[in-house]
Amino acid sequence: MPEGSLKLKAQIMCGGETAMGPGKADLLGAIDREGSISAAGRALGMSYRRCWQLVDTMNRCWAERVVETAIGGGRERGARLTPLGQQLLTAYRGLEATLASAAERDLGWFTTALRAESIPASGHRVLNK
Amino acid sequence: MPEGSLKLKAQIMCGGETAMGPGKADLLGAIDREGSISAAGRALGMSYRRCWQLVDTMNRCWAERVVETAIGGGRERGARLTPLGQQLLTAYRGLEATLASAAERDLGWFTTALRAESIPASGHRVLNK
Repeated sequence: MPEGSLKLKAQIMCGGETAMGPGKADLLGAIDREGSISAAGRALGMSYRRCWQLVDTMNRCWAERVVETAIGGGRERGARLTPLGQQLLTAYRGLEATLASAAERDLGWFTTALRAESIPASGHRVLNK
Repeated sequence: MPEGSLKLKAQIMCGGETAMGPGKADLLGAIDREGSISAAGRALGMSYRRCWQLVDTMNRCWAERVVETAIGGGRERGARLTPLGQQLLTAYRGLEATLASAAERDLGWFTTALRAESIPASGHRVLNK
C-alpha cells in the first residue's frame, strides 16, 4: 500500500455545526502564522468570506472566542488566536496524532489485502446485469 | 458535549480512489443482509448505478473481488460478499472501533471547552472589517 494511503478525518460537532475539523485546524494554523484572516485565506486559497464563516462558527461553538481581531482594524489589520484558540489547535493536532497512531496497528491487514496495482475503471463493465 | 458529537471518518486509499470508507462499508453490510445490489441500494436510498460503481471500485482495488454476483442473473438475482469481502468489512469495522476507542481518551478537553449552548449563526456580524 503506498505511503499516506489511510485518510482520517475527525470532526468535533456542536449541534448540527462542525466546531472543529481539518479545514478549521488549517485555518487556525494559518491565522497563527499569517497574523490576519485575509492573509490566512490567501495562504490557503480560500475566500475571506469563507474564512470568516469558519472563524464565526468556531467563535460561537467554543466557550470563548478562539480568534480575536484588532478593534477597528480592517481585513488586513490583524487577527490572532486567543489562548483558547491555541489550546484548541494543539488539542486537535494531538487527537489527529492519537488516531493515526492507533490506526497504524490495524493497517497490516489492509496493506496485505490491497491489490498491488489497481485495475483501471472500466465504464462499460456491468456487474449483475 | 452531547453524545455522538465526535465524527470520525477513515478511508483506505488506493491510488486516487477510495478502496474502503464509511459508505462502502455500509454498502457491503447491506449486500450481505439483502442478498442483491438492487435491494442493498433500496435499503440505503442509493441508485443501482451508484452502488454498482462503489462495488466496481472495491473489486478493482482489492486483491480479489469483494462482491460476487450470480452468473447470468439479473439485478435482482443475487450478489454476496466473497470471503475477502467479509474479511474487509470485519477489518474496517474493527478499525472504526479502534479509532473511536483511541479518540475517547482525548475527548475530555474538547468536552470541557465547548460552549454549553452554541450561539446561533449571525449572518450580519462581521469580524475584522
